[in-house]
Amino acid sequence: MTIRVAIAGPRGKMGSEAVHTVMKNDNMELVAVLDHREIADSLEDYAEFPNNYCIPVYTDLESLFKTERPDVFVDLTTPETVYKHTKEALLNGVRPVIGTTGFTDEQLEELTELSTELKLGTIIAPNFAIGAILMMKFSQMAAAYLPDVEIIEMHHDRKLDAPSGTANKTAQLIQENRRGHKQGHPDEVETIEGARGADIDGMRIHSVRLPGLVAHQQVLFGGEGQLLTLRHDSFSRSSFMSGVKFSIEKVMELDDLVYGLENIL
Amino acid sequence: MTIRVAIAGPRGKMGSEAVHTVMKNDNMELVAVLDHREIADSLEDYAEFPNNYCIPVYTDLESLFKTERPDVFVDLTTPETVYKHTKEALLNGVRPVIGTTGFTDEQLEELTELSTELKLGTIIAPNFAIGAILMMKFSQMAAAYLPDVEIIEMHHDRKLDAPSGTANKTAQLIQENRRGHKQGHPDEVETIEGARGADIDGMRIHSVRLPGLVAHQQVLFGGEGQLLTLRHDSFSRSSFMSGVKFSIEKVMELDDLVYGLENIL
Amino acid sequence: MTIRVAIAGPRGKMGSEAVHTVMKNDNMELVAVLDHREIADSLEDYAEFPNNYCIPVYTDLESLFKTERPDVFVDLTTPETVYKHTKEALLNGVRPVIGTTGFTDEQLEELTELSTELKLGTIIAPNFAIGAILMMKFSQMAAAYLPDVEIIEMHHDRKLDAPSGTANKTAQLIQENRRGHKQGHPDEVETIEGARGADIDGMRIHSVRLPGLVAHQQVLFGGEGQLLTLRHDSFSRSSFMSGVKFSIEKVMELDDLVYGLENIL
Amino acid sequence: MTIRVAIAGPRGKMGSEAVHTVMKNDNMELVAVLDHREIADSLEDYAEFPNNYCIPVYTDLESLFKTERPDVFVDLTTPETVYKHTKEALLNGVRPVIGTTGFTDEQLEELTELSTELKLGTIIAPNFAIGAILMMKFSQMAAAYLPDVEIIEMHHDRKLDAPSGTANKTAQLIQENRRGHKQGHPDEVETIEGARGADIDGMRIHSVRLPGLVAHQQVLFGGEGQLLTLRHDSFSRSSFMSGVKFSIEKVMELDDLVYGLENIL
Repeated sequence: MTIRVAIAGPRGKMGSEAVHTVMKNDNMELVAVLDHREIADSLEDYAEFPNNYCIPVYTDLESLFKTERPDVFVDLTTPETVYKHTKEALLNGVRPVIGTTGFTDEQLEELTELSTELKLGTIIAPNFAIGAILMMKFSQMAAAYLPDVEIIEMHHDRKLDAPSGTANKTAQLIQENRRGHKQGHPDEVETIEGARGADIDGMRIHSVRLPGLVAHQQVLFGGEGQLLTLRHDSFSRSSFMSGVKFSIEKVMELDDLVYGLENIL
Repeated sequence: MTIRVAIAGPRGKMGSEAVHTVMKNDNMELVAVLDHREIADSLEDYAEFPNNYCIPVYTDLESLFKTERPDVFVDLTTPETVYKHTKEALLNGVRPVIGTTGFTDEQLEELTELSTELKLGTIIAPNFAIGAILMMKFSQMAAAYLPDVEIIEMHHDRKLDAPSGTANKTAQLIQENRRGHKQGHPDEVETIEGARGADIDGMRIHSVRLPGLVAHQQVLFGGEGQLLTLRHDSFSRSSFMSGVKFSIEKVMELDDLVYGLENIL
Repeated sequence: MTIRVAIAGPRGKMGSEAVHTVMKNDNMELVAVLDHREIADSLEDYAEFPNNYCIPVYTDLESLFKTERPDVFVDLTTPETVYKHTKEALLNGVRPVIGTTGFTDEQLEELTELSTELKLGTIIAPNFAIGAILMMKFSQMAAAYLPDVEIIEMHHDRKLDAPSGTANKTAQLIQENRRGHKQGHPDEVETIEGARGADIDGMRIHSVRLPGLVAHQQVLFGGEGQLLTLRHDSFSRSSFMSGVKFSIEKVMELDDLVYGLENIL
Repeated sequence: MTIRVAIAGPRGKMGSEAVHTVMKNDNMELVAVLDHREIADSLEDYAEFPNNYCIPVYTDLESLFKTERPDVFVDLTTPETVYKHTKEALLNGVRPVIGTTGFTDEQLEELTELSTELKLGTIIAPNFAIGAILMMKFSQMAAAYLPDVEIIEMHHDRKLDAPSGTANKTAQLIQENRRGHKQGHPDEVETIEGARGADIDGMRIHSVRLPGLVAHQQVLFGGEGQLLTLRHDSFSRSSFMSGVKFSIEKVMELDDLVYGLENIL
């Protein structure tokens, strides 16, 4: 069976990658895209897409759903419109795959109920990089057996915040399984401040920033005579696309809302 | 509650590590050891143990069980006697923790039935290095989502066989979850034979042998724009001891036989 | 002093990166580009360049040199025209920075003599990635002290040949400093063919191919109780640009021809 | 030619390794050892050495030199006596290989002059791990071309000080070749204090402490589109022995004093 897919925001960085991903997959068909501005009738008329992308462009979601009858609606755009889009998809019998974090608790609750009621799968995922999600999930599992953990995250030097969001999220997941304790020697001394990194519940996080790097993280678990290292390297934005593809296929089998890919991997 | 532990083979490489492990743990008490030769009455008289190791030494297992009434019997010795020891332990109401692979299918079946019947936990583990087992378990899980895998295992240069047993075992676990396919470019060419490593079902294994190395393995999963790496470094024999400790605690909660720590981690 | 630079092939993958590199550097001025087709008078009229790139485009090299009087001429195009370009540059008093390997021995000899005679620096570099060249140079140095070496090179799975050119070049440099000997245990056995990799003079090379990877290499040196690892990761084509920038600056100080950046790093 | 070697402190951790190292090397002969206590006449009578180690033990250095006439005197003991030993060796025509750091400037100067005057090579090395010294030396060289550097050093969790001595020494060597500048984004913010590590002249050092680790360091150099990593793993004390062996051979060719193996590698 071919899955009929519609995508919102085809000119965005993530959206355009999603367009290519769906076009490349044999078991999917891109039936329409949603743009918020009237630019052209077909994707092939956009400068950034090849000439054989004869995909109709809509500016109205309702008529897109009515006319093209997609199975799945992928929205990787900004939080402002996503809630409305998701609800509209469900009410039109279309399964949403959403890549944003901007929902309020009330909105999430409403969408969860709607999804269950209509028996229509919904996937909302703040992170689509399957490798990164596996790294986090495995870290959480490993912490139960090897509770001495340090995280080294490494990013390009244009990044503003340290530690990274992924490192914080990983530490939080680990905390659920790790009995908190101060690591290192009780009498250890930093002869230069900061050497031992950021302290979260006795664990340590180190943030490396260098030109050339993209987005990398390793989680180190030490035990007597051994070291377990879980590492993820993200080399380009396309790392998200394996998760988008997985979600489009998976959402067809679901009959309720799932928040976070870690819960279905 | 303190767990009363007896250990077989205290002079062996693994056995002596186990002795130290139990002595160091507050929730365990070493109540006796089994030696196959009459050497001394107490461990403290052995050259290799400190003077405060006042642990009685038995050469007869039956009398050890009757006199010292241990909760757990740890046997990390050779396959020849282990089957008999394990059975004897169960029949004396003692839970076995066994670190050998030399059982026949019939023996395993009999011990499994006995363990279930008596509602006495038994753990048989070919590998006690928790980090290595987690690496294998996570590799199996990851292969379902990122099916392009290569294994690099690295050992000291006195090792005879390549690939290592752990690499083969990892590949076998991965195969259960990975749809087999030939990796790499269909037209790839080795300009020097062997460059692309050993081929298992389209996966590749590379064996590095260098002086200085101990026992290391990394499993690499490639996906569009990303790489997930699971790595285990074993720096010394003591890496097995975290698994022995874990098993002594865990076997107290079990009421049947478990083969392989991966099934209870 | 600002270095006046001309670049051949601004529409090529490497050429366009070079254009951006020179435009970004304060101590350089891009005074002209050479295109083999008449496309527009100025780079700003090319679709792929921004509107403030008001750089004159020439199709004739002689008139470019006469009119714009560059200090340095950068040619990263194909071998066919490069010899002629290099010679013409020297005869016009312009220092060439060349990134190709297609010279015959006679051509190289002639250019070397011409460069020396005119006391004009010339740099010809098959590889401009400074990090990769340092990795190779350091590997050669280390092999004199730690002669047990294995190379692991890792590339995307669209690569056809294994081992990579860089791995072969590294092995060749190492051979100059390493007393050849068969590594590993004398009686080692491959239970699956290829596990121990490609054999060069007793050294081993392993080629990993996975989707997501770009171009990576590590050189491992084992010694008693220790391991030295030299690793280079190339994440994008822009890794070559630090070497191009370095060469433009360096060629101004030279008064003869240098082949290979390793000889001036 | 066989090099006749004498070793001080055969019962020390380093000294006993040195004894084994010399015994194993065909081009060396262990002619005597110096012990500060009269324990036995021959090494074979020490519990920790095998029965075929028939090496005479002296408690007086002068008579050792006069009777056994060694070519090289290896002293890896404590600073207190080393100065006296070194001077005595030179005055007896024996070349010293010394592994301690406890000399005053005056003592070093005197020994340097004596060594030059007598045309007798002397090696004084605070660190004998050849791999670690190469890592430091290469780091210093690389910093001239890739000036964005971060150091990650990783040690067992019984270590008291952070950063490690090797990391500080590496940073100091890098500083000699790197134009100082603040790395990372000018506006970067630590949301948890210490995340960005210790700051040395704009470089960053991160200290990881975990059970199981031994002594490891990696130096990362970032450049546009690339990363160069120099890593050293020390798995056991025996990592120092390759440097001791190298020094015994090298000191025979020297006719003055060398401080630090980096100056002769």
